[in-house]
Amino acid sequence: MPDEMSRPLIRGRGGGGGSRHLEASVSEPGAPVIGILGTGDFSRSLARRLVASGYQVVVGSRIPKRSVALFPEEAEVTSQMEAANQADLVFVAVFPEHYSTLVELKPALAGKTLVDVSNGLQINREGPSIAEQLADLFPESFVVKGFNTISAWALQVGPRDGSRQVFLCSDSQKAKSSVMQLCHRMGFIPIDMGLLSSAVEIENLPLYLFPSWRIPVLCTLSLFIFFYLYNFLHDVLQPFVTAGKSSFYKMPIETVNVTLPSVALVMLALVYLPGLCAAFLQLWWGTKYKRFPNWLDQWLTRRKQFGLCSFLCAVLHAIYSLCLPMRKSAHYKLIDVVFKQVKDGKEVSWDDDAVWRMELYLSAGIMALGLLSLLAVTSLPSVANTINWREFSFIQSTLGYCALSMATVHTLLFGWDRAFDPARYHFYLPPTFVLVLILPLMVLLGRLALFVPCVASRLRQIRRGWEKSRHIRFILPDDDCRNGLEDVSNVVASQQIIWKLFRRI
Amino acid sequence: MPDEMSRPLIRGRGGGGGSRHLEASVSEPGAPVIGILGTGDFSRSLARRLVASGYQVVVGSRIPKRSVALFPEEAEVTSQMEAANQADLVFVAVFPEHYSTLVELKPALAGKTLVDVSNGLQINREGPSIAEQLADLFPESFVVKGFNTISAWALQVGPRDGSRQVFLCSDSQKAKSSVMQLCHRMGFIPIDMGLLSSAVEIENLPLYLFPSWRIPVLCTLSLFIFFYLYNFLHDVLQPFVTAGKSSFYKMPIETVNVTLPSVALVMLALVYLPGLCAAFLQLWWGTKYKRFPNWLDQWLTRRKQFGLCSFLCAVLHAIYSLCLPMRKSAHYKLIDVVFKQVKDGKEVSWDDDAVWRMELYLSAGIMALGLLSLLAVTSLPSVANTINWREFSFIQSTLGYCALSMATVHTLLFGWDRAFDPARYHFYLPPTFVLVLILPLMVLLGRLALFVPCVASRLRQIRRGWEKSRHIRFILPDDDCRNGLEDVSNVVASQQIIWKLFRRI
Amino acid sequence: MPDEMSRPLIRGRGGGGGSRHLEASVSEPGAPVIGILGTGDFSRSLARRLVASGYQVVVGSRIPKRSVALFPEEAEVTSQMEAANQADLVFVAVFPEHYSTLVELKPALAGKTLVDVSNGLQINREGPSIAEQLADLFPESFVVKGFNTISAWALQVGPRDGSRQVFLCSDSQKAKSSVMQLCHRMGFIPIDMGLLSSAVEIENLPLYLFPSWRIPVLCTLSLFIFFYLYNFLHDVLQPFVTAGKSSFYKMPIETVNVTLPSVALVMLALVYLPGLCAAFLQLWWGTKYKRFPNWLDQWLTRRKQFGLCSFLCAVLHAIYSLCLPMRKSAHYKLIDVVFKQVKDGKEVSWDDDAVWRMELYLSAGIMALGLLSLLAVTSLPSVANTINWREFSFIQSTLGYCALSMATVHTLLFGWDRAFDPARYHFYLPPTFVLVLILPLMVLLGRLALFVPCVASRLRQIRRGWEKSRHIRFILPDDDCRNGLEDVSNVVASQQIIWKLFRRI
Repeated sequence: MPDEMSRPLIRGRGGGGGSRHLEASVSEPGAPVIGILGTGDFSRSLARRLVASGYQVVVGSRIPKRSVALFPEEAEVTSQMEAANQADLVFVAVFPEHYSTLVELKPALAGKTLVDVSNGLQINREGPSIAEQLADLFPESFVVKGFNTISAWALQVGPRDGSRQVFLCSDSQKAKSSVMQLCHRMGFIPIDMGLLSSAVEIENLPLYLFPSWRIPVLCTLSLFIFFYLYNFLHDVLQPFVTAGKSSFYKMPIETVNVTLPSVALVMLALVYLPGLCAAFLQLWWGTKYKRFPNWLDQWLTRRKQFGLCSFLCAVLHAIYSLCLPMRKSAHYKLIDVVFKQVKDGKEVSWDDDAVWRMELYLSAGIMALGLLSLLAVTSLPSVANTINWREFSFIQSTLGYCALSMATVHTLLFGWDRAFDPARYHFYLPPTFVLVLILPLMVLLGRLALFVPCVASRLRQIRRGWEKSRHIRFILPDDDCRNGLEDVSNVVASQQIIWKLFRRI
Repeated sequence: MPDEMSRPLIRGRGGGGGSRHLEASVSEPGAPVIGILGTGDFSRSLARRLVASGYQVVVGSRIPKRSVALFPEEAEVTSQMEAANQADLVFVAVFPEHYSTLVELKPALAGKTLVDVSNGLQINREGPSIAEQLADLFPESFVVKGFNTISAWALQVGPRDGSRQVFLCSDSQKAKSSVMQLCHRMGFIPIDMGLLSSAVEIENLPLYLFPSWRIPVLCTLSLFIFFYLYNFLHDVLQPFVTAGKSSFYKMPIETVNVTLPSVALVMLALVYLPGLCAAFLQLWWGTKYKRFPNWLDQWLTRRKQFGLCSFLCAVLHAIYSLCLPMRKSAHYKLIDVVFKQVKDGKEVSWDDDAVWRMELYLSAGIMALGLLSLLAVTSLPSVANTINWREFSFIQSTLGYCALSMATVHTLLFGWDRAFDPARYHFYLPPTFVLVLILPLMVLLGRLALFVPCVASRLRQIRRGWEKSRHIRFILPDDDCRNGLEDVSNVVASQQIIWKLFRRI
Repeated sequence: MPDEMSRPLIRGRGGGGGSRHLEASVSEPGAPVIGILGTGDFSRSLARRLVASGYQVVVGSRIPKRSVALFPEEAEVTSQMEAANQADLVFVAVFPEHYSTLVELKPALAGKTLVDVSNGLQINREGPSIAEQLADLFPESFVVKGFNTISAWALQVGPRDGSRQVFLCSDSQKAKSSVMQLCHRMGFIPIDMGLLSSAVEIENLPLYLFPSWRIPVLCTLSLFIFFYLYNFLHDVLQPFVTAGKSSFYKMPIETVNVTLPSVALVMLALVYLPGLCAAFLQLWWGTKYKRFPNWLDQWLTRRKQFGLCSFLCAVLHAIYSLCLPMRKSAHYKLIDVVFKQVKDGKEVSWDDDAVWRMELYLSAGIMALGLLSLLAVTSLPSVANTINWREFSFIQSTLGYCALSMATVHTLLFGWDRAFDPARYHFYLPPTFVLVLILPLMVLLGRLALFVPCVASRLRQIRRGWEKSRHIRFILPDDDCRNGLEDVSNVVASQQIIWKLFRRI
């Protein structure tokens, strides 16, 4: 046997399900002893992981005898005082409301590093963070806030499946460094967030519930309600009021199926509108160094969410449309048409106009849906990570505008000549598709305007640093080196999002 | 030229396709020389990667002349004895059955680190691992097991696309550390698995074939066969036996289309049932510190697979349903209905009841499918990694129960009043949907029971450590800090899965 | 307060949106001062990240006063000369065309490390790279090329969402090491690409536009055009020419709907054909050590792209097919059929043959689509990373051949007996499905041939090193250890792709 192999501390069995898959790893002499106060899920997962990474672990529990069976053999389960004495670095894995019960351990923990892994129950907007309260209780220990965003599950399966980043902050650089080293060894990536006053932000991180989706989802719901009421008024109420015709059966599917594509198309136009606004603002100001209004800034950062909401509506619209021939109402109407034709003795029923209209707008619709699917797939994080900036820009910008154009063509073909048919103006309200087409056509015209050579070249100059006030071209050599390939909208987006480091976007 | 630049060892061309994209990186003086015994795919990929990471590589081959052309110029290809002499750390990239042929290299390899990268051909449940056999052959070398889960492809494209984790184990801590350092430099994440006796588990890792999917897939198949036979009996056989009506054409599509939603709904109920069982068990025991039965534990860890099987069946059901109007059988039946109506001279055929039934259950079905899609998308690993615990819980728990409710409503609306129509009881067997609704309704009622205030508050107390036996509230301060936001079912799940570190789940 | 806490340099506010989420991290004494020349988006993102990782940052701008407001408080914004003097390591974040304006900083930058983060505007195939030009301008500084593939966005949100890999190359090992250390601390993974002459390749990396997709997409488009013209000739032109029947309405949807499945099936066959070619070549040569022709090599590396193009066409075909009953043309034709039948007084219209044909080929089609979806989902990078080699091989190979078989069965059932009906041979051209079936049937027969026991065992021997020329079994012990489980086609693929390290695949 080679002689430098240290004798193993504990040759354990690994526990659980009869599996022998984990043996004690010999700890390096000099590696810190890690203590864990607490015996819940997180403690157990953390103990397992520390043991697997080669650390010596001692767990402090109030009732050691009951907890021993739950921990791996390599970890020593003892009283809290004993654990606090043995350990060099201690994870405080107890509920925040019980921190005060640990006060008796103060002498044992003096001069040691305490890691606060707790989470609050609600978003903390004022008042001290839990980590700062712990620091007040233990003024002679060095408190590091961290690991609160890592779930017990992620500790178990390793960073392969769970999130890898561990946000740390502390007033003590030395304590923070030792916790960072621990992270690296466990396979996580530590992110330094600064002093302990950043703990509020770290504690709030796992409490957000899709903060960047609120505005897009609200927008979608508002548009849905608006268009549903409009269509209800137009297609169901007006025939009922004027001709006594009962079309209320249309409400679950047909009216929804006119509402969904309206919402989808307007939301899709709203994805590309802020980029155009930004470009025109820059052309107006003649410089790219002026900051955008806050609303435009917010809008630019949420374009992906707008796009995904639009895609969801588009897919649901497709499914609803495919369901239309299946319904009993469609059957009955078809039967009545046939009956009428038989009575009239008409041998061939063929309306070339109607046939071509449907063939064309269905084609355009399917192509638009296909292009939107490509955009949606490349929004997936793993796919987005494998493509570079030029490819991402090609898909989201070029193919995106193609999708918007195709969807607009689909709506125009669906409209055909109905905009000019006065019978379709119920209560003097135009058919829905007329209303829907306003915004997308504006966006497409605006984009075409940016293709005009003089406008395009001026915009390119502005992005490379030209400023109208100075009348000097290329005077500022210190511009972003990446502009050559970035889409205008994306450049100005990154300008404004710089203040959101680590914020949920 | 700056003076500390060491003279390059070999300025090579990089080979292949005329690309000049890789030049020799100057190796640090003092960096270990890495040897590779073997000239297969893995050897070549490994040599390329080591060279690109700045190491000096020497490859040992039995027929050096033939292999030189296949390796990059920076790597030196020589005889096995020569490679063993030059190298400090040796990768043994040969078939396990040929380890005995390397015995002559024993003196040259004494005191050096050997990395065993081989895989077995089948899962090894007893007997020594390949690494342990290698260690027996070379008792004076330090054997490290590792890299067997990394494919040649992952070595090539780098950890960006392939899996990043490298599982290592060894009896020698020093050898393990040097291999870990090598991993880091190549861009991989080393995971310490302990002593060499863990090699069995590491060698088995790449041999599993979806171990966590077996039970869900078996369950799906059994349910499918059961419901298909039930529907066949009910819809095809009974009319044939009693009335001589031949409906065998229904077997490929219509019968399947009644079977798939049944399977989907029952599987979806089975996703949420274990969580309820766990909650009720905890309420019954009055404590959360008692371990669950093994079957419940296993079930809780497979909920995601149950859900994805349910989603697949639901999507197939949707596609089959959308295909129904397209079929020739549907055409012929429609034609016959019209013919009959024309003969009867009925001018308008409209059954308000049938129309509303279909409109409503189609709506409910599409909404259920949309919600299930959201659940499926957030199951993707990359999407799951970008959302935090609270968001994941919201989607999988809240939206999940909404999906289950909507699917149950869909089935109830489909049933409408048919449960009360005796003509639909063939052979005294109820229509399929009656059978299918039992389990989902139980699950939904159970979940509603957990909403009752006293029950909900008792459960919350139990999860925060209250124990009936002690009649003391909050006596145990050392509980998991994360409970405030976790869904009951997920908490108890993590309790039990702690023993499965690194096991395929 | 613990005494080793260094006094903070700057206690800043973090800026933006009123968020207090980032405080100055105390820099370690001895950590290098990082300078950034330039004030564009990249500079700002980089400054934020360096500050958050604990470095002291000084930014050099030509107009310091204007730029101060845009940078975080912890970063010092000053003149370029001042920044060059203070910093130890300098990021040159200016446009390449302005490098010459920095010449005056040469004395200040002598002996320091310069990091060139610029990108070119087009792929550079000859001529020196931008990094080499910078090195010529500053011969006394050590130029490191890196960070050009990291977008400002990735710097902001951290490596969680953006790409993590940073490609570095430099002639100075010491400079490269310090930049690598910087990478690690910021949470990125540095990849050593060698000497500065590799800078060309690194600068070209972000300029590629889907290089591996060109051939598959071209192939898809060519097949689409070919089959569309063939179908147009067969279904639209021939009836028009011979019988004057106008079927031009078929062009948007029906003709496309016969073209898409043809393209999908041929592309799917092209996914599995190269693997068979490789296997047969190896059997012919009797060895696995001979290199494949270049075209086969290229084809083998693009199989995933071929498969995904096939999947897209298959999905579009499904959507087009589901749209068929919805169209007005379908309505009119149905109405005419009913009318005709009513006139003929035929009470029951039922063609058992036609009914069964449609039920069966629809079933087969849906099953093929389901299997293809499984293949597509496992192609997603995040899903592919969670499954091991054996599972990946099972899905892509076993299930893949099942999908190909099912799609072939679908086409055969669609054909039914139409191949034997002379009326369907327009202009002596066979119906499209006859043409389409040639390649898939060849592939399936070829694969069956490989199942023949003697052929299969010979192939297995060859893969384990047997060579016909030597007539010796297992003479070569130095083969890839992973062959036992790999599918033939995948083994030979990896053989050839070894020269493409870091190339876009």
